Amino acid sequence: MDILDTIQESLGSILTAGLKVLLLIIAYLIVAPIGKKIISKSIRNVKRKDNITEGRIKTLEKLLLNIYSYTIIFLFVAMLFGIFNIPIGPLLAGAGILGLAIGFGAQGLVSDIVTGFFLLLEKQIEVDEYVTVAGFNGIVEEIGLRTTKVRGFDGTLHFIPNRDISGVSNHSRGTMRALVDIGISYGDNIDHALEVLQKVCDDFKENDTRFKDGPDPLGVQAFGSSDVVLRVIGQTENMMQWAAERDLRKKIKEAFDQEGIEIPYPHQVNVTKESK
Amino acid sequence: MDILDTIQESLGSILTAGLKVLLLIIAYLIVAPIGKKIISKSIRNVKRKDNITEGRIKTLEKLLLNIYSYTIIFLFVAMLFGIFNIPIGPLLAGAGILGLAIGFGAQGLVSDIVTGFFLLLEKQIEVDEYVTVAGFNGIVEEIGLRTTKVRGFDGTLHFIPNRDISGVSNHSRGTMRALVDIGISYGDNIDHALEVLQKVCDDFKENDTRFKDGPDPLGVQAFGSSDVVLRVIGQTENMMQWAAERDLRKKIKEAFDQEGIEIPYPHQVNVTKESK
Amino acid sequence: MDILDTIQESLGSILTAGLKVLLLIIAYLIVAPIGKKIISKSIRNVKRKDNITEGRIKTLEKLLLNIYSYTIIFLFVAMLFGIFNIPIGPLLAGAGILGLAIGFGAQGLVSDIVTGFFLLLEKQIEVDEYVTVAGFNGIVEEIGLRTTKVRGFDGTLHFIPNRDISGVSNHSRGTMRALVDIGISYGDNIDHALEVLQKVCDDFKENDTRFKDGPDPLGVQAFGSSDVVLRVIGQTENMMQWAAERDLRKKIKEAFDQEGIEIPYPHQVNVTKESK
Amino acid sequence: MDILDTIQESLGSILTAGLKVLLLIIAYLIVAPIGKKIISKSIRNVKRKDNITEGRIKTLEKLLLNIYSYTIIFLFVAMLFGIFNIPIGPLLAGAGILGLAIGFGAQGLVSDIVTGFFLLLEKQIEVDEYVTVAGFNGIVEEIGLRTTKVRGFDGTLHFIPNRDISGVSNHSRGTMRALVDIGISYGDNIDHALEVLQKVCDDFKENDTRFKDGPDPLGVQAFGSSDVVLRVIGQTENMMQWAAERDLRKKIKEAFDQEGIEIPYPHQVNVTKESK
Amino acid sequence: MDILDTIQESLGSILTAGLKVLLLIIAYLIVAPIGKKIISKSIRNVKRKDNITEGRIKTLEKLLLNIYSYTIIFLFVAMLFGIFNIPIGPLLAGAGILGLAIGFGAQGLVSDIVTGFFLLLEKQIEVDEYVTVAGFNGIVEEIGLRTTKVRGFDGTLHFIPNRDISGVSNHSRGTMRALVDIGISYGDNIDHALEVLQKVCDDFKENDTRFKDGPDPLGVQAFGSSDVVLRVIGQTENMMQWAAERDLRKKIKEAFDQEGIEIPYPHQVNVTKESK
Amino acid sequence: MDILDTIQESLGSILTAGLKVLLLIIAYLIVAPIGKKIISKSIRNVKRKDNITEGRIKTLEKLLLNIYSYTIIFLFVAMLFGIFNIPIGPLLAGAGILGLAIGFGAQGLVSDIVTGFFLLLEKQIEVDEYVTVAGFNGIVEEIGLRTTKVRGFDGTLHFIPNRDISGVSNHSRGTMRALVDIGISYGDNIDHALEVLQKVCDDFKENDTRFKDGPDPLGVQAFGSSDVVLRVIGQTENMMQWAAERDLRKKIKEAFDQEGIEIPYPHQVNVTKESK
Amino acid sequence: MDILDTIQESLGSILTAGLKVLLLIIAYLIVAPIGKKIISKSIRNVKRKDNITEGRIKTLEKLLLNIYSYTIIFLFVAMLFGIFNIPIGPLLAGAGILGLAIGFGAQGLVSDIVTGFFLLLEKQIEVDEYVTVAGFNGIVEEIGLRTTKVRGFDGTLHFIPNRDISGVSNHSRGTMRALVDIGISYGDNIDHALEVLQKVCDDFKENDTRFKDGPDPLGVQAFGSSDVVLRVIGQTENMMQWAAERDLRKKIKEAFDQEGIEIPYPHQVNVTKESK
Repeated sequence: MDILDTIQESLGSILTAGLKVLLLIIAYLIVAPIGKKIISKSIRNVKRKDNITEGRIKTLEKLLLNIYSYTIIFLFVAMLFGIFNIPIGPLLAGAGILGLAIGFGAQGLVSDIVTGFFLLLEKQIEVDEYVTVAGFNGIVEEIGLRTTKVRGFDGTLHFIPNRDISGVSNHSRGTMRALVDIGISYGDNIDHALEVLQKVCDDFKENDTRFKDGPDPLGVQAFGSSDVVLRVIGQTENMMQWAAERDLRKKIKEAFDQEGIEIPYPHQVNVTKESK
Repeated sequence: MDILDTIQESLGSILTAGLKVLLLIIAYLIVAPIGKKIISKSIRNVKRKDNITEGRIKTLEKLLLNIYSYTIIFLFVAMLFGIFNIPIGPLLAGAGILGLAIGFGAQGLVSDIVTGFFLLLEKQIEVDEYVTVAGFNGIVEEIGLRTTKVRGFDGTLHFIPNRDISGVSNHSRGTMRALVDIGISYGDNIDHALEVLQKVCDDFKENDTRFKDGPDPLGVQAFGSSDVVLRVIGQTENMMQWAAERDLRKKIKEAFDQEGIEIPYPHQVNVTKESK
Repeated sequence: MDILDTIQESLGSILTAGLKVLLLIIAYLIVAPIGKKIISKSIRNVKRKDNITEGRIKTLEKLLLNIYSYTIIFLFVAMLFGIFNIPIGPLLAGAGILGLAIGFGAQGLVSDIVTGFFLLLEKQIEVDEYVTVAGFNGIVEEIGLRTTKVRGFDGTLHFIPNRDISGVSNHSRGTMRALVDIGISYGDNIDHALEVLQKVCDDFKENDTRFKDGPDPLGVQAFGSSDVVLRVIGQTENMMQWAAERDLRKKIKEAFDQEGIEIPYPHQVNVTKESK
Repeated sequence: MDILDTIQESLGSILTAGLKVLLLIIAYLIVAPIGKKIISKSIRNVKRKDNITEGRIKTLEKLLLNIYSYTIIFLFVAMLFGIFNIPIGPLLAGAGILGLAIGFGAQGLVSDIVTGFFLLLEKQIEVDEYVTVAGFNGIVEEIGLRTTKVRGFDGTLHFIPNRDISGVSNHSRGTMRALVDIGISYGDNIDHALEVLQKVCDDFKENDTRFKDGPDPLGVQAFGSSDVVLRVIGQTENMMQWAAERDLRKKIKEAFDQEGIEIPYPHQVNVTKESK
Repeated sequence: MDILDTIQESLGSILTAGLKVLLLIIAYLIVAPIGKKIISKSIRNVKRKDNITEGRIKTLEKLLLNIYSYTIIFLFVAMLFGIFNIPIGPLLAGAGILGLAIGFGAQGLVSDIVTGFFLLLEKQIEVDEYVTVAGFNGIVEEIGLRTTKVRGFDGTLHFIPNRDISGVSNHSRGTMRALVDIGISYGDNIDHALEVLQKVCDDFKENDTRFKDGPDPLGVQAFGSSDVVLRVIGQTENMMQWAAERDLRKKIKEAFDQEGIEIPYPHQVNVTKESK
Repeated sequence: MDILDTIQESLGSILTAGLKVLLLIIAYLIVAPIGKKIISKSIRNVKRKDNITEGRIKTLEKLLLNIYSYTIIFLFVAMLFGIFNIPIGPLLAGAGILGLAIGFGAQGLVSDIVTGFFLLLEKQIEVDEYVTVAGFNGIVEEIGLRTTKVRGFDGTLHFIPNRDISGVSNHSRGTMRALVDIGISYGDNIDHALEVLQKVCDDFKENDTRFKDGPDPLGVQAFGSSDVVLRVIGQTENMMQWAAERDLRKKIKEAFDQEGIEIPYPHQVNVTKESK
Repeated sequence: MDILDTIQESLGSILTAGLKVLLLIIAYLIVAPIGKKIISKSIRNVKRKDNITEGRIKTLEKLLLNIYSYTIIFLFVAMLFGIFNIPIGPLLAGAGILGLAIGFGAQGLVSDIVTGFFLLLEKQIEVDEYVTVAGFNGIVEEIGLRTTKVRGFDGTLHFIPNRDISGVSNHSRGTMRALVDIGISYGDNIDHALEVLQKVCDDFKENDTRFKDGPDPLGVQAFGSSDVVLRVIGQTENMMQWAAERDLRKKIKEAFDQEGIEIPYPHQVNVTKESK
């Protein structure tokens, strides 16, 4: 084996390396834009189907394209290194350790973003809706990729990491139930009380536009320890349920007062015995 | 070793590479469609057996075929790279890190889809059924692969990630129990009270088609602190249990009033002592 | 090195490859059926010992043979690839990523099947038994490999993933205890009350075939704030305990009424003081 | 390089392979029986020290030898494959994936067996003992490697996976405490009441063989809202504590009745005011 | 192959090594400053957008640059070792074990820093704000990368590891609600009481600058067991809600006293029976 | 290459192998005893510092030397195999799978031993001490490497796996607090009551050797709903606190009786109203 | 290839090995002391900034240097083995398995030390401070790297593994709040009661040096069911809050007695009805 051979060999290996690089670049040039197009298209498809606002779409698209670009560039560089036999083992090992660290320490962050992504996409909550998430109760102020802000009714601003949001209770999607339980005395006539309730309810049905359905008395809900509990139920406009319940209570109390139906205090039968 | 040799060698390696590629393509052409057929067939078998609707079958089939296709293409490309000695280590390492990230951050997502898949397949819940899942109570509005929507009775719309659904309580699968507990005074005659209850129950049996079985009085359920508790039980049509219970309560109260059987208030024996 | 050499070499490597394939096939032909036989036999052994029904045995056998076949075929194909130097790294890497995904997302599924397997094998619960599992209470309707269905007494059908079943409380395996606690006044004679209770119990012992053992009064269980609590215990036929308790309560109440033994209301000593 | 060389080479490699196989077999023949003997001996040592029954020892020995044999055979086969250069990578990869699956899905099973092993070895619970494990209360019916069966006092049979057993409370290992708390009126003389209690206790000490130590009155345990609480404590034979407490209560009540010491009802001072 | 060859070969390998080192150094010189610039720029961008104070920005920038430098130097050294074929396997293995140890033992630390980073960046809490985090309640004293200090109202200083902070409730971001519930007798006229409340509220609206909105009476909030509950709500300056509520309570009490509206005590109906 | 070459080569490889074995053996002979000495010495150092009993030291030393020996032998054998090129991959893979199995199934065991080791070393609990660990309360009967036995005061023997022991509350390390809360009437003079308490306490200080410090009255601890609560505190010998409290209660009651200070019953102001 | 060649080759490999060893030793000699200096310096920097005592600094420094030394020696030996081609795979595998075992079984230990390190460094708690950690309440007796000892107020000594310490509540860092809630009758004049409270508070302000700020009455804190609750708040020296509250209570009670302001008992309005 003389010097010519070494040159020849070197040339050969350079040629093959060149070929590989060429192939790699071609692969890159093909794969990179295709991926981008797929992402853009599928996002836009999602959009057309689900009527998501333009701004929201752009946020999601940018996020996805960013992730895609970083990944593809990382792979391209790593492969290039591999072709020239520059040891990339350490690079990968370092990345692996970093990966572990991320995996353990920052998995919450990834989890936040994944959940946030679906909160936006599936429109589970919108700004200005009244929701219960992760044990917090209030009006949504902002939905971010990492954190959701909810304003409690007492004025507190809750910052909720999206990962903590699992079951979402959205109280702003449709009519709400107004429910009033009212106790009458065991001595009162049930039918009479139900008639009075019906009258009050009919009045609300005619004159109160907040009620979409009902209100109507249902009947004997329970035997309390001192009263027979009657229940009235109706469907109201969203967020109107509390005011409607308050008015319903006031009217029922006044009607019962007029008709002499008692809302009884707790009762106790006292059996008196002389002290020993 | 001269140039001819190198050419020969190259030719040899090209030939073997070509052979491998051929073998690979053949393998691909055989495996790919077979897999697809197996998936389609097994899905359709499931369908015939379990009477799942056509639409649902198609959703599941599409999902499975998608996953299958992406997997098989990924493997094909990776093997091709391997044959031409383009280093795919970095590719795999990248995929591995991504895999870890997915594993940690988005495992919930996989878990959602797996659970959703079985919810659809095993028909544990259907739209318009009354269920209790993951602590939420209400009527099912939609069952998705990721999220299930349940409408609470107070009007709230609950979004439940499928992963949170473990034990499912379905209240819309068969007759429901109507149960009324009623206390009578310790002074009253138990046999008399049971006779009265039996009369009321017989009336319901004859005239109320909501009751599928019973109602019937069972006997002395408990000694309360101030009353002897009697229990009445019956089986009603689904979702009719609450109305039936309400009517049962009203009739029992009226029958007891007529017969002079007292539903007692809490009692207390007062032993009076003079102050020291 | 000339062409003859290459041919010779190729022949050599083909020969060794052929030899390896042969060895592999022989190994496969030996291992595969042996494994199957071992599985079948051990299942059938289990059967003879534990008196499991034929249908159940077949389900388990089919499941195990399926898993075994897929595993052995996967290994055979992978080894074949290995012999012909078709890079199977990617294949395995793909399988590994899939494995991770399964591990994280679908581990619940594996867990379901393992638990279901042992539920069937150890006969912890049977259809139509009354059990408490995973916080659900009711009659078992179906035991599947993935899900167990329990019908609650209120008519609800509970779907319980087997993984959620840890401690199983089976209420249908033997006689059940009937227990009645009854309070008597602090002024009453304890011995007298115990005699009356003994009389009632003796009556049940003679005439009520539901009781397998007892009932018998035990003595003074506790000093209540207003009563001395006596306890009666007996063993009844399975599922008869509630009816037996109800009858026991009724008879004790009637016997106490006859004998003038009071079941006391809550007592309070009132010390009256003039207002300041 | 001509054909002779190849033959020579082949012969050489065959020879070295043969040598390796020989070495392997020798190693196997040495390691296998030694391991078995070590296992048997250490088990038997455990036995002599801890007085475990012969049957139990055999169960444990068989289990350990089984695990050992499967492991050693697996290793032998894998090494043989390795010597003949049959790629065992896939085999191991397959085993690895299986291992992961086991690790995730069936780790509970391994955990069951490990805990069961120690339950047997350390004799924490025995059949017919009264124990509290994993929140279940009752008499042990069977201790298995996977499941422990406990019969509750109400007749329910609890199946408890051994993994759920952490802290074990064994109520059948030694004398048990009988404890009676008794309230006397604030007006009564404490010394007098303690004397009466002492008399009752002395009577039990002399005549009741169930008491191993005591009973004795301890003194003023607490100031209740309406009574001064005195405590009596004694040590009884195992499982006799409840009956002893019941008899103690009865005797104390009778002695107090005789001596005119009142067990007071809840007291309340009533300050009467005229209504506004 | 003679000595010249070896020298040639060595030279060749030295040359290629030199080339690799050169390439590596160039790569380092290009990558290192670019990374730093990217970090600095993105931090400054964040700053301009979110108005974070200069000091905070510097802390974050320094932290990020430190992490980046250590990573890039580690990679550079490891690659250098790799080029000279000094085995770096052990180095990496050691790093791996260390990584595991960190992963398990100190993952909390990484988690602390990640959460702390976002607490600073997203300005969820600021020093001197009144917050509820991780179950602790009080005024923020310091926000560190690892620990946040909160001073409770009772004087206690709480050290909270940032990892424990998930949902943050910040009570210092906007007006707060003042809420007073007041019970009136069932006998009182509701309209009259509401008028009196309105008068009191109007007085506050005019004269009390702490109220930003309201206060106003809402109506009948609930039927209590002895009173009809009315609710008054208003919005006050931050941290003024408690003082405002206290004054509101005092004024309402005085107004009700003047108008003769009773805030009722608990009521009970006593049915007297003669002792048996 | 002829036969001589092969022989030469073989000889060379045998020589190098021999050299490696030699080096390995030397390394083993150096490392093994050094490790043992380090372990023994550090244990004995620990002993001298912390006054641990000889028996306990031997147990720990034996445990550590065992673990060390098994590890070093395993490594020696594995390296030997490696030198002779017997594939140890499978061995390691097997060990790895076993390691995983141990990791998942038996990690509790390792955790038990580690915690047990520190319980012994740090002397957190000793036999015959009164402790609260893992929710169990009682006297320590035995501290093992895997399990700790605690005898409850009711006679139950608790077996607690060491892994469940985290926070240990040791009630046998120093003087214990005796605390008595006593309520006096709102009408009584506080200063007078405190003087009486002081007198009782002084008496105990002089005559009762169980008290190491105090007892002393502290002042008005709380305003109860019917009484003003005064608190008395003292320090007693270990395990004497309950008896001391009992005697303290008795003496205080007697002193209050003498001085006419009332321990009040619950009070209620009754406002009587005529029924409607 | 003849013997000369082999010798040449051997020489060559020995030379390269020697070169590598040289390079390694140089690297070691450079890296080892630099690392030590960095550790020492950064610790001392920490010290100067945070005023940590000399003894504590030395403990931390020694711990860190130990860990560093063991790590660097392990790496050096492993690399040396690597250069001489002694297979270190098994060594690493063994270390890996050990690492796993440590990772699973003893991760708590690492976690203890990490937390302990920060407890010392951040001075969250000091000996003799009154703290609440991990649910335990008391005075710190010792802070170790593994365990912290807290003496409860009842005399119990709590051993708390540092890993259980997350949120630390330190009650010894600054003035503490003294808070007294006092109820007055609904009939009393609120202004009058507040004046009396102010007078008492002023007296404390002037004469009681324990109060650093206040005390002052705040106003009407709540409407109780039978009383109007007034609140008094002040800031006292650390650990003086309880004694100060006790004195405050006594003085308020005496002032209210003088001024005839009633602390009311629970009230109830009794509506009497004749028995049916």
